[in-house]
Amino acid sequence: MNRQDVTEMIIINKKMKGLTWLDIANKIGLSKEWTTAALMGQMTLNESQATIIGKALDLPAEAVTQLQVVPYKGSLPTAVPTDPLLYRFYELINVYGTTIKSLIHEEFGDGIMSAIDFSMDIQREANPMGDRVKIVLNGKFLPYKTY
Amino acid sequence: MNRQDVTEMIIINKKMKGLTWLDIANKIGLSKEWTTAALMGQMTLNESQATIIGKALDLPAEAVTQLQVVPYKGSLPTAVPTDPLLYRFYELINVYGTTIKSLIHEEFGDGIMSAIDFSMDIQREANPMGDRVKIVLNGKFLPYKTY
Amino acid sequence: MNRQDVTEMIIINKKMKGLTWLDIANKIGLSKEWTTAALMGQMTLNESQATIIGKALDLPAEAVTQLQVVPYKGSLPTAVPTDPLLYRFYELINVYGTTIKSLIHEEFGDGIMSAIDFSMDIQREANPMGDRVKIVLNGKFLPYKTY
Amino acid sequence: MNRQDVTEMIIINKKMKGLTWLDIANKIGLSKEWTTAALMGQMTLNESQATIIGKALDLPAEAVTQLQVVPYKGSLPTAVPTDPLLYRFYELINVYGTTIKSLIHEEFGDGIMSAIDFSMDIQREANPMGDRVKIVLNGKFLPYKTY
Amino acid sequence: MNRQDVTEMIIINKKMKGLTWLDIANKIGLSKEWTTAALMGQMTLNESQATIIGKALDLPAEAVTQLQVVPYKGSLPTAVPTDPLLYRFYELINVYGTTIKSLIHEEFGDGIMSAIDFSMDIQREANPMGDRVKIVLNGKFLPYKTY
Amino acid sequence: MNRQDVTEMIIINKKMKGLTWLDIANKIGLSKEWTTAALMGQMTLNESQATIIGKALDLPAEAVTQLQVVPYKGSLPTAVPTDPLLYRFYELINVYGTTIKSLIHEEFGDGIMSAIDFSMDIQREANPMGDRVKIVLNGKFLPYKTY
Amino acid sequence: MNRQDVTEMIIINKKMKGLTWLDIANKIGLSKEWTTAALMGQMTLNESQATIIGKALDLPAEAVTQLQVVPYKGSLPTAVPTDPLLYRFYELINVYGTTIKSLIHEEFGDGIMSAIDFSMDIQREANPMGDRVKIVLNGKFLPYKTY
Amino acid sequence: MNRQDVTEMIIINKKMKGLTWLDIANKIGLSKEWTTAALMGQMTLNESQATIIGKALDLPAEAVTQLQVVPYKGSLPTAVPTDPLLYRFYELINVYGTTIKSLIHEEFGDGIMSAIDFSMDIQREANPMGDRVKIVLNGKFLPYKTY
Amino acid sequence: MNRQDVTEMIIINKKMKGLTWLDIANKIGLSKEWTTAALMGQMTLNESQATIIGKALDLPAEAVTQLQVVPYKGSLPTAVPTDPLLYRFYELINVYGTTIKSLIHEEFGDGIMSAIDFSMDIQREANPMGDRVKIVLNGKFLPYKTY
Amino acid sequence: MNRQDVTEMIIINKKMKGLTWLDIANKIGLSKEWTTAALMGQMTLNESQATIIGKALDLPAEAVTQLQVVPYKGSLPTAVPTDPLLYRFYELINVYGTTIKSLIHEEFGDGIMSAIDFSMDIQREANPMGDRVKIVLNGKFLPYKTY
Repeated sequence: MNRQDVTEMIIINKKMKGLTWLDIANKIGLSKEWTTAALMGQMTLNESQATIIGKALDLPAEAVTQLQVVPYKGSLPTAVPTDPLLYRFYELINVYGTTIKSLIHEEFGDGIMSAIDFSMDIQREANPMGDRVKIVLNGKFLPYKTY
Repeated sequence: MNRQDVTEMIIINKKMKGLTWLDIANKIGLSKEWTTAALMGQMTLNESQATIIGKALDLPAEAVTQLQVVPYKGSLPTAVPTDPLLYRFYELINVYGTTIKSLIHEEFGDGIMSAIDFSMDIQREANPMGDRVKIVLNGKFLPYKTY
Repeated sequence: MNRQDVTEMIIINKKMKGLTWLDIANKIGLSKEWTTAALMGQMTLNESQATIIGKALDLPAEAVTQLQVVPYKGSLPTAVPTDPLLYRFYELINVYGTTIKSLIHEEFGDGIMSAIDFSMDIQREANPMGDRVKIVLNGKFLPYKTY
Repeated sequence: MNRQDVTEMIIINKKMKGLTWLDIANKIGLSKEWTTAALMGQMTLNESQATIIGKALDLPAEAVTQLQVVPYKGSLPTAVPTDPLLYRFYELINVYGTTIKSLIHEEFGDGIMSAIDFSMDIQREANPMGDRVKIVLNGKFLPYKTY
Repeated sequence: MNRQDVTEMIIINKKMKGLTWLDIANKIGLSKEWTTAALMGQMTLNESQATIIGKALDLPAEAVTQLQVVPYKGSLPTAVPTDPLLYRFYELINVYGTTIKSLIHEEFGDGIMSAIDFSMDIQREANPMGDRVKIVLNGKFLPYKTY
Repeated sequence: MNRQDVTEMIIINKKMKGLTWLDIANKIGLSKEWTTAALMGQMTLNESQATIIGKALDLPAEAVTQLQVVPYKGSLPTAVPTDPLLYRFYELINVYGTTIKSLIHEEFGDGIMSAIDFSMDIQREANPMGDRVKIVLNGKFLPYKTY
Repeated sequence: MNRQDVTEMIIINKKMKGLTWLDIANKIGLSKEWTTAALMGQMTLNESQATIIGKALDLPAEAVTQLQVVPYKGSLPTAVPTDPLLYRFYELINVYGTTIKSLIHEEFGDGIMSAIDFSMDIQREANPMGDRVKIVLNGKFLPYKTY
Repeated sequence: MNRQDVTEMIIINKKMKGLTWLDIANKIGLSKEWTTAALMGQMTLNESQATIIGKALDLPAEAVTQLQVVPYKGSLPTAVPTDPLLYRFYELINVYGTTIKSLIHEEFGDGIMSAIDFSMDIQREANPMGDRVKIVLNGKFLPYKTY
Repeated sequence: MNRQDVTEMIIINKKMKGLTWLDIANKIGLSKEWTTAALMGQMTLNESQATIIGKALDLPAEAVTQLQVVPYKGSLPTAVPTDPLLYRFYELINVYGTTIKSLIHEEFGDGIMSAIDFSMDIQREANPMGDRVKIVLNGKFLPYKTY
Repeated sequence: MNRQDVTEMIIINKKMKGLTWLDIANKIGLSKEWTTAALMGQMTLNESQATIIGKALDLPAEAVTQLQVVPYKGSLPTAVPTDPLLYRFYELINVYGTTIKSLIHEEFGDGIMSAIDFSMDIQREANPMGDRVKIVLNGKFLPYKTY
């Protein structure tokens, strides 16, 4: 039973139990974004969190243990995602990438937005023209320093 | 003089004149995000906008014309970006992609966040532990429909 | 049993029962194009549709459940399809792509034809020189807007 | 002056003269789709057509000659197109490809839709919810035969 | 049991029964080239042909059914074949490709040699300097037409 | 002036002088196939041949010299050709490759058809259903030997 | 049991029996280089050789049969090998490739060194500075000929 | 003038002066193999060697200087070489790679054959069946050690 | 049971027994870096080491044997690593690669840092601003020599 | 004059003036590692630093300006480096990558070593068996946090 098997088992059991990601996140007192990432095999649970999740989703002991191992990250099967929802985000980087780079450098100087010291918030924004997806990315700016 | 030449000329002339992207955006009354994207060769100016930009940046007539042609979009030289700032965004899609997909589908059903009916806002968020980059992505949800 | 397994089971059982895609589509009152896409693992059925399909094709409960999960889309094994029928469509994009882009932009301005708010119709067109395949693609035009 | 240079010159001169693709197509009595493809470097003009186009767009003699040479076809710079409008068509093949294949084979048997004995028609379809792009692909079915 | 499994079973059973491809082709009255392609998972048998082949090679019913399904074609595991015999053919296209293109266009005008309305014949040619492989490719010329 | 420049100059000058590949081949007493390959930058002329070709096509001395240098071979810009005529040959290898391999091995044992000790003949075959392209590939069989 | 399974079984059984490749090669009276290649799934044994090898390595009948089938060749999992020992050989081609090409063409004219009519000898060369690997590649020169 | 320009100038001037690689190597008292690699842009000359070569080939001062700069190595334009002569060497690694690896490890243990502490010798071997290319690769074995 | 299976079994059993890599390394008296690499399937144990490891981790006999076979090295599933920790090292090569190359060549001349005669030491460096990872790479310089 | 042109001009002028990277670094009071990276087009100089470098290397005003623009980073022409010195570092990541990952996670938990808050030191280590390259990588550990 490798980590991918654990992820598939989680998705099926969650569906069968009629739980939402937010339901599960509430059980361990964390955000739905971080919790989903962890259960998708991208973050690492501590023993207490893994035990709670394991009970909630009827996972076997081996799966509970695997949730505590730091995974080899990367959740997409190809370098350019084929799934239309995910491709749109890739397209945003491709089309707006140099824009994002120029504006961040103009504001902060040379450096990056951290993808580790980072949080994300996904919300529905009601709109009479059709509801919108609002995603807030929030990462610490890390400057290159001279040495 | 192809579109890439126009982009490079814009970057150099902007630097020499000491203008910021916001300065330029203000001249045509649009956001710094859309304006930068347009001048990076990803969006299309109308004749009035192109003329104003051309004067502000001392662009030749051919360049002003090219800014009004719908460009072949895509601003990155490789499928996986090598630049560390841009790579971090690619990494976010790779690590958090299935999370984003699951949460949007759970909230909205099957469909995508539009990358066309879309806006972006990039801000500095002051923080005593180190300032943060805050990026808000806002796109209309487009549902797949049965037919 | 992953989604690919469900798809393969559908193809086999359909063949054994001598059903056409249109027969199956009629059971749920939708087009043969959308129904085939759903059963090929690209669209999501609701519970009622999945139950009907499950009975018609003798699918086990787990498969019926999976048909209700939004799938990771993309039905081709390689970026450039090797199958001759599918390659011809790829070739059309490669040869006629800039033509399509120029003509749509000339008519509509900058934007795209939606692949989500989209329908497709595939018909046989009788012709004494050899019958022809007629495919109508119909997608909403989505304009890029300034902001 | 290679074929790509001729294409770029055509686009610029067309823009400067304020001609549409349909205007140009009308001069040689052919469809806007085929004419655009030819001037985008994908089809071959005969001497008479090339001379008319050359005059309409002020092309030099060498360019007029090149328009009569069968080109090395393929108008996209990468295997997966980065331009959002063109990517949507690639996505359609990726998502609906196996659907198209199944429905054509069910109707016609084993074979392909020709991309050579082929025509295309691109139209605007008015719609109160937002106008739509309607593209009709029409290709002869070519069956595999036993031998 | 997928199509690849059927192909592997055919190769093994054929070897065990000491049959040649020509032996098998003779049973259904077709060429050794077409028959081999069909049994390699690239062509589609009708019910009568599949039944005869199934008996000759002791195939189970499911395999006999699969031989009647139009397969997803493409018999090579990589875009550039690693097998030396097959690579030589790839090399011929790479080295002689522009030659073949120029000579066909000079003789026929713009168009292609069909790979569908096509037959192939493979023969040994005796030669005192070492026997030679003689392969005759025969495909209908399909012209691009204006419209 | 690199070899690619020489090739492009040859194609242009040949077109301007209204010569066919056969006309040129006749000047050096060789087949149209080999001669075209050589002038496409894939084969090496001796001094006498290069001088004759140089006169026939008004090539400068440097080009005549380059025609005598063994070129770095490979005439296609991408691993999978985008040009429809050339793609059909690639498709034939992909679809019929394992067939060709099986039939050659059954006839000759383990080994290859040489792509060096090789000749090719391209002919038009008249046919009331539409003329056909007939290509004969003829290469020495080279067996793997034990040692 | 496919050919890869046979190869893995050979490696394990050989290890368990404490045999060297030379031991095995001596049983069939051939070189250690050819024998290893054959057992690694790259060459084809005749019935007598396969039977001897089968006994020596306790292989089942199906494996013995498979050793007599001409394999699909290519023993590396990626186009650029990741294994350091094998990469060094790839590096030699990358760094010295144009050198090898120039020197062979200067000596022999246009053509290749055969990889089929070829033998290889791998030896240890004692050296007080550290022993060396000496590999002799020996292939027939095959000239391109005019026709 | 980059290093590639220097290489091309060397090839042209060498051809015009009718020098062989051995002639040039003799001027600096080194092997034809190392000298060719250096002039192909893969090795670094010292000042004395570069001056001698510069005179022999009429190179400008800038080129003589560049020959003394350690180059970015790698002489092939694609990961898999398209040139038939070079491809055969790539094929040898692909077909015989696991054989070479197994035999070296059996003789020397875990480690590699150095591609740096390495020499190569290319010779013609006369043979009544057709002369052969004999290439001796000689590299120090470097063992992995525990630590 | 292939080498990848052995690696996965080691990781699981180690986790269940609550051992650290250093604990395991101490049992065979080697560094934690080399020992981890060996158990990750990249180095080769001798019989004594393999037996000790086998007991410590409850490995079956076949796994103990496999640890003594020289593995096909390379521990990453893609050419560009998707895991963020590993990507940062790839990024360092991409950003600082030409810097490292220039500084080593300036100090040592043309050659490489060996990746075989090499050791690595990974340490935590306490720092009030946040602890740091300190990695010392130590490899023998191997010069290219003339011959 | 793009950034690549500036880099090439720096390398040439540095060579002509006989300066080392350390000489140049001393002029701006920074390490040789950071300074080389900046002049290789990977870091950004401030105005004062750029002016000093410009004088030291006789750079034109445009180049001095470009050194102050944040560059698009990535100094290698291919995803897998072909240069042997740089490849060895890529190989270290490939062979030791999972080792580095395991040991850092065991010591620090889930997170990464920063490639931004990072410094590097490259030294020669004298050794009677042959001098060694010693590279110290020093980066802040950045933990993933829950939120």
